[in-house]
Amino acid sequence: MEKVQLKPANGKLGVLVVGVGGAVATTFIAGTLIARKGLGTPVGSITQLATMRLGKREENRFPKIKDAVPLAELNDIVFGGWDLFEDDAYKAAKHAEVLTDEDLNKVKDELAAIKPMKAVFDQNFVKRLHGTWVKQAPTKWDLMEQVREDIREFKKANNCDRIVMIWCGSTEVFTPLGEIHKSLATLEKAMKESHADIAPSNLYAYAAVSEGVAYINGAPNLTVDIPAMWELAAAKQVPICGKDFKTGQTMLKTVLSPMLKTRMLGLSGWFSTNILGNRDGEVLDDPGSFKTKEESKLSVIDNILQPDLYPELYGNVYHKVRINYYPPRKDNKEGWDNIDLFGWLGYPMQLKVDFLCRDSILAAPLCLDLVLFTDLAQRAGMSGIQDWLSFYFKSPMHEPSKIAEHDLFIQYVKLKNTLRKMIGEETVDFIE
Amino acid sequence: MEKVQLKPANGKLGVLVVGVGGAVATTFIAGTLIARKGLGTPVGSITQLATMRLGKREENRFPKIKDAVPLAELNDIVFGGWDLFEDDAYKAAKHAEVLTDEDLNKVKDELAAIKPMKAVFDQNFVKRLHGTWVKQAPTKWDLMEQVREDIREFKKANNCDRIVMIWCGSTEVFTPLGEIHKSLATLEKAMKESHADIAPSNLYAYAAVSEGVAYINGAPNLTVDIPAMWELAAAKQVPICGKDFKTGQTMLKTVLSPMLKTRMLGLSGWFSTNILGNRDGEVLDDPGSFKTKEESKLSVIDNILQPDLYPELYGNVYHKVRINYYPPRKDNKEGWDNIDLFGWLGYPMQLKVDFLCRDSILAAPLCLDLVLFTDLAQRAGMSGIQDWLSFYFKSPMHEPSKIAEHDLFIQYVKLKNTLRKMIGEETVDFIE
Amino acid sequence: MEKVQLKPANGKLGVLVVGVGGAVATTFIAGTLIARKGLGTPVGSITQLATMRLGKREENRFPKIKDAVPLAELNDIVFGGWDLFEDDAYKAAKHAEVLTDEDLNKVKDELAAIKPMKAVFDQNFVKRLHGTWVKQAPTKWDLMEQVREDIREFKKANNCDRIVMIWCGSTEVFTPLGEIHKSLATLEKAMKESHADIAPSNLYAYAAVSEGVAYINGAPNLTVDIPAMWELAAAKQVPICGKDFKTGQTMLKTVLSPMLKTRMLGLSGWFSTNILGNRDGEVLDDPGSFKTKEESKLSVIDNILQPDLYPELYGNVYHKVRINYYPPRKDNKEGWDNIDLFGWLGYPMQLKVDFLCRDSILAAPLCLDLVLFTDLAQRAGMSGIQDWLSFYFKSPMHEPSKIAEHDLFIQYVKLKNTLRKMIGEETVDFIE
Amino acid sequence: MEKVQLKPANGKLGVLVVGVGGAVATTFIAGTLIARKGLGTPVGSITQLATMRLGKREENRFPKIKDAVPLAELNDIVFGGWDLFEDDAYKAAKHAEVLTDEDLNKVKDELAAIKPMKAVFDQNFVKRLHGTWVKQAPTKWDLMEQVREDIREFKKANNCDRIVMIWCGSTEVFTPLGEIHKSLATLEKAMKESHADIAPSNLYAYAAVSEGVAYINGAPNLTVDIPAMWELAAAKQVPICGKDFKTGQTMLKTVLSPMLKTRMLGLSGWFSTNILGNRDGEVLDDPGSFKTKEESKLSVIDNILQPDLYPELYGNVYHKVRINYYPPRKDNKEGWDNIDLFGWLGYPMQLKVDFLCRDSILAAPLCLDLVLFTDLAQRAGMSGIQDWLSFYFKSPMHEPSKIAEHDLFIQYVKLKNTLRKMIGEETVDFIE
Repeated sequence: MEKVQLKPANGKLGVLVVGVGGAVATTFIAGTLIARKGLGTPVGSITQLATMRLGKREENRFPKIKDAVPLAELNDIVFGGWDLFEDDAYKAAKHAEVLTDEDLNKVKDELAAIKPMKAVFDQNFVKRLHGTWVKQAPTKWDLMEQVREDIREFKKANNCDRIVMIWCGSTEVFTPLGEIHKSLATLEKAMKESHADIAPSNLYAYAAVSEGVAYINGAPNLTVDIPAMWELAAAKQVPICGKDFKTGQTMLKTVLSPMLKTRMLGLSGWFSTNILGNRDGEVLDDPGSFKTKEESKLSVIDNILQPDLYPELYGNVYHKVRINYYPPRKDNKEGWDNIDLFGWLGYPMQLKVDFLCRDSILAAPLCLDLVLFTDLAQRAGMSGIQDWLSFYFKSPMHEPSKIAEHDLFIQYVKLKNTLRKMIGEETVDFIE
Repeated sequence: MEKVQLKPANGKLGVLVVGVGGAVATTFIAGTLIARKGLGTPVGSITQLATMRLGKREENRFPKIKDAVPLAELNDIVFGGWDLFEDDAYKAAKHAEVLTDEDLNKVKDELAAIKPMKAVFDQNFVKRLHGTWVKQAPTKWDLMEQVREDIREFKKANNCDRIVMIWCGSTEVFTPLGEIHKSLATLEKAMKESHADIAPSNLYAYAAVSEGVAYINGAPNLTVDIPAMWELAAAKQVPICGKDFKTGQTMLKTVLSPMLKTRMLGLSGWFSTNILGNRDGEVLDDPGSFKTKEESKLSVIDNILQPDLYPELYGNVYHKVRINYYPPRKDNKEGWDNIDLFGWLGYPMQLKVDFLCRDSILAAPLCLDLVLFTDLAQRAGMSGIQDWLSFYFKSPMHEPSKIAEHDLFIQYVKLKNTLRKMIGEETVDFIE
Repeated sequence: MEKVQLKPANGKLGVLVVGVGGAVATTFIAGTLIARKGLGTPVGSITQLATMRLGKREENRFPKIKDAVPLAELNDIVFGGWDLFEDDAYKAAKHAEVLTDEDLNKVKDELAAIKPMKAVFDQNFVKRLHGTWVKQAPTKWDLMEQVREDIREFKKANNCDRIVMIWCGSTEVFTPLGEIHKSLATLEKAMKESHADIAPSNLYAYAAVSEGVAYINGAPNLTVDIPAMWELAAAKQVPICGKDFKTGQTMLKTVLSPMLKTRMLGLSGWFSTNILGNRDGEVLDDPGSFKTKEESKLSVIDNILQPDLYPELYGNVYHKVRINYYPPRKDNKEGWDNIDLFGWLGYPMQLKVDFLCRDSILAAPLCLDLVLFTDLAQRAGMSGIQDWLSFYFKSPMHEPSKIAEHDLFIQYVKLKNTLRKMIGEETVDFIE
Repeated sequence: MEKVQLKPANGKLGVLVVGVGGAVATTFIAGTLIARKGLGTPVGSITQLATMRLGKREENRFPKIKDAVPLAELNDIVFGGWDLFEDDAYKAAKHAEVLTDEDLNKVKDELAAIKPMKAVFDQNFVKRLHGTWVKQAPTKWDLMEQVREDIREFKKANNCDRIVMIWCGSTEVFTPLGEIHKSLATLEKAMKESHADIAPSNLYAYAAVSEGVAYINGAPNLTVDIPAMWELAAAKQVPICGKDFKTGQTMLKTVLSPMLKTRMLGLSGWFSTNILGNRDGEVLDDPGSFKTKEESKLSVIDNILQPDLYPELYGNVYHKVRINYYPPRKDNKEGWDNIDLFGWLGYPMQLKVDFLCRDSILAAPLCLDLVLFTDLAQRAGMSGIQDWLSFYFKSPMHEPSKIAEHDLFIQYVKLKNTLRKMIGEETVDFIE
């Protein structure tokens, strides 16, 4: 990878959020607005807070990433999006019960001004929700065309230079990779025929990429992880990335599994359970949606531990993931993990981790970073799958010829070394 | 760093263990003997089990480290050492109650043949133990000379080509860096005068390095982490490394802190408590010994999180470490951590980790790796502080001009890239 | 309740165990044999270890229960039973991997001499097991008659004075209370017609009671908790009791719920999850069997907390129970509970309990106590439902006109005061 | 105990709180004021919420305790007290950060009207606090006289019929029972001589009882648990009770220990650690104060488990309690317990309990109940030690001839049966 020609971040950056009234979206938007007013810190955001070493250790150069790399400014962001419910972003944020009234009041007017556009909704893909603010059209293709129209109008109305779309909506019912996903032609045909396997997310993504808009997939839905969309992204020179924000328990897994592996400690079982009470928990209470999520969560350990290479250590791992809808907790997710490991001569040990986290608080900074990095990638002429952003995803997209990298630390080195390359600096190998 | 000229690992490698009758030492020795008979797996050992990528990812070369790097063979190791108690290694291992009878019986005769040499003992440095198998001499210098004599005799009697010494003894009472430690001349003078601050470990280390024997420090004692010993190691061209095996709770800390930091999540407090009931726990029940350990354990978080660079996130961390002697558990240590973190806009979250580990089971493979890597370093002509072995230590020694690296993953990349360099391979930066 | 006329415990007491080759049964039997040889302590057994205050506090009379109450002696017990697999009790105990070889060897011969009789087996009631040592007969009634014949032969062959039967078998698929259970006549008709709802446990219980043998139900199966069996027990003057041994998580629930209630602390949610890897876990992995268990586990909290009486505190509790088959743990069950409680003015708090228990180790002493107390009851002329033994059950049987008592401490007072009454002593009310 | 002649609860009840500006006191007062306005529920209060069975089970009589027993009404309570700091109760409550602004605003004016009287303060007894609102006098006796004067003035000014005093202040430095405590004469002499062992709490208690005011001791300080004060209480016909509110971890201990004991499960070790960051935590960071607390916390297990009666089960318990000042948590105390138990044949199991509680939220309802029950006792003519209130205390006071009862459930039965007796109802023995 050579140093690239980076277009400057001039003008407004439109951020279109699918599920703009959800807990994650409103927390992301409110926090960004608060941060740009200087009334709060966007903790968790690499783009806003992290530094990066440049040059040799002895040069002692540690600029903030946002000072070294030409990212869009928070002040240049304009928010919009779609939702199944008509509430504006202020009402939706109140309903989500994530941020305090004190925080929401800091940006009440800005939030209240964000009115969702009508959503593409299909009950077959989200059994537990009942949308009331939805588009109508004769075919799925027509619905998609309405989304394209929305994008164009938003861009014009807000005088945006560039647009990025991010999916913060629900997990859709599991759909295996099928024939319709395998080429652009079959996908387009299926949309026109309103094929049962075409989910709303397919329509949003197709609309985005067609309009030259990068697409970020925060859920485990297939969406842009299909050959048809790789084809379209290549044709349109648009970055795409996903799948599924890596927040609580899986983030921990991609840290603890590498610990076991670097230390060559064996693993016999890993049991993970979650309790959460927000809309996400309600949707995942449906077995179809859970299956999509489960697939996303299960592959992590195997990929990191490489049982083929280490059959004695990782050849017989029993891995189980459970998600339980538990209303008393609302957005305050709790993940409990029990890990059965073994050491020297096979002696067993146990590690238990209880993470009292907050779903949306962990996801919000990922949204901000992904929006800014995807926009950067587009200005750098990097289209298609952005595997340098694997750091942010539970189930990172990757070229078919490569395997996914799940190790959070390798992902982070990759992210930073990619940024270094982009700006013509040397990569780091830690040898000294 | 250039490719180095590596001397081959011919002949026997003597491994002299200080505290050869302790739980860690006997577990290390018994397990190594079992493994070389093919009767058990040395789980946790990088040298025996890990692979290493060589070349580009697409070359698909993943040899075992021990096949790519010329390490000594397990079959060439001869064990010996010193202890405060006269029990042979079999009796001592039974007493330690770490390994099952079934395992110990596999190598009973070999263990029974390992008789400890009399130890250097000083009650002032380990208040809770009462040695009965100890050397007598007019001055501390004379005690040191006896250790040198022991080394020479062992080498000859066992026909060793090379020797490595490893401290698996107790944590000594805290001694701050003083004038006597600052040059070889003052150190030697202090030994001759039996200065009160000269601990037994000083004598073992001085004897080792004087005899051209590498010294590995598995406890938090200062020992070789003083200018006087750097001077001696340079003069004698001998590798030294330490301090304090990184096993349970601190290993976790050097994984979870980097997780917080790569994700730019804030930290307000970290409370760590330990319960353990082995001899190590008993020794650490003494406040003087605990202080040494505490110093070793406390610096980790600050070093990784860089509060100077990130005052908003890590400028106000309350970090507390407790160790509790709790006999019902014997060697089965338990570490409980409560971590108070915060995310987006400062919202608090909690992470609790309960590690039901086994002290000696985690430490044993580190002993094996350190012995083999230190011997490798010596054959590669790498003398003085081995900071590429930081991976194994709670409080890694480092050049005075550099800061320690505590992040387990950076340490591991450094270790592997150092090995790659040694054998003339390219280092890895994960960019592709 | 008046002082009763107690028949003495003369002669042999036959104990017939259904599922005699299971983990609970073999642990119960082996431990009882070990204890009566004086080679181990039957920890957990009230009958063997507990004392009981008699008279006023100042009298200072605290005899052991077994010295104050005429229980059968351990030496007078003879074991037998049925199983789906042909292994003798020694082989079965080895397979169960609960007790160490060292313990099993203490009573190897006695165990090996216990050969199971062929079981009544019906795949429809236990989907995950595949019995190979099973009775054949034209109708269910005939199978029952074979069991009666087994009982009579066992009694004669072993020269028993009295017999007690205890179910230590698997949880059967959920069967709701139906017409066939409502009278003895309908039940007998259904057995003769091999009605699909007649489970193996119905046949064992009917056979037992018909032969004048008390029946103890250690599983949540309905079995003797139906009007038909109450009728039979009354007619035959036989004690019956159940359902479902109260061991790990539920025992804790019946202690922690009363704590909340005595302190008038509110409850908003209780999430319980279990991981276990023994045959019990495998059986419960089947949704039908789990349903039976779930019913047994769910009622506990409501019953203790009385939401009708305390709607503000307990009117809106979200209670969820999960059981996960997780082979790495074998018999070493782990129960993790998260309890969301609230206090003064409604402020929320959390309590988390992690119980690393052992299923069979907890159940075995309950078996012993129930066998001895049930035999006592029969000699005392107490027939039908033994609600004074509620202490031992997750889902205690009770007279239809009364509600069940789940509070462990009230159950215990009831048990002891019943014993006091039986022997003509005053009951205790703690007022002084 | 016979049915007693109960004086009615006419007129105002003055409640004088020592430490009226502390977290516990302000939470107690604010909550009581909120509850009597009907703006919140006094969760945790037996007097306000609990019911009590009267008569036989079949009579189905379950009145609220407050309807069956003539307690003072919340509306008749008048609050006052002393504090080391001048802040009124509203400012103090804000500072404590226990209740939300929303709750405090409901009773802001009433709280603001409560101005503390100057406290008796002695730095020797509370090393970590520095009082600024303190009485001055030539001798300790004179300080005590000032407190008496305060009581009389408060009673007159507020037109109170009766007064109760409750200590919600800090834990004082450990003082062993000495000669000065053994008779009223020696105690009075020591006060007059300003003996070093006379703590502020001695002066408050002496003043209270001398004025005919009941004294409730919420801290582990000796105070009224000395023969001198028993003598005074008898002479003045005043109830006294203590020591140390039983809230989080110890409440759990008095529930879990009885569980072990009723089930005859053995115990080998119990490790308890606490983290808390409020003023209480700060005071207990001083070893002298911690010692007082430790004594209070340690005796619980032994007392309940009766190792003399059960040496096999409880003869070798290693019990350790730690309290750690940890500012990030403020009043949100966390107690982590590890319990090493054993079952059948001695097989080990572990129970871990993590209680994320709130110190003042748990203590506040105990204050309310104790105030009302102590007043009731006084009207019932019950003077001296009130051991029927053991339910509320970590280290319950008791007649020298009796041992303390720690089991929460026996304590509760005792409390209720005592109430039943008071009103002439039958006690309950659970036999039916």
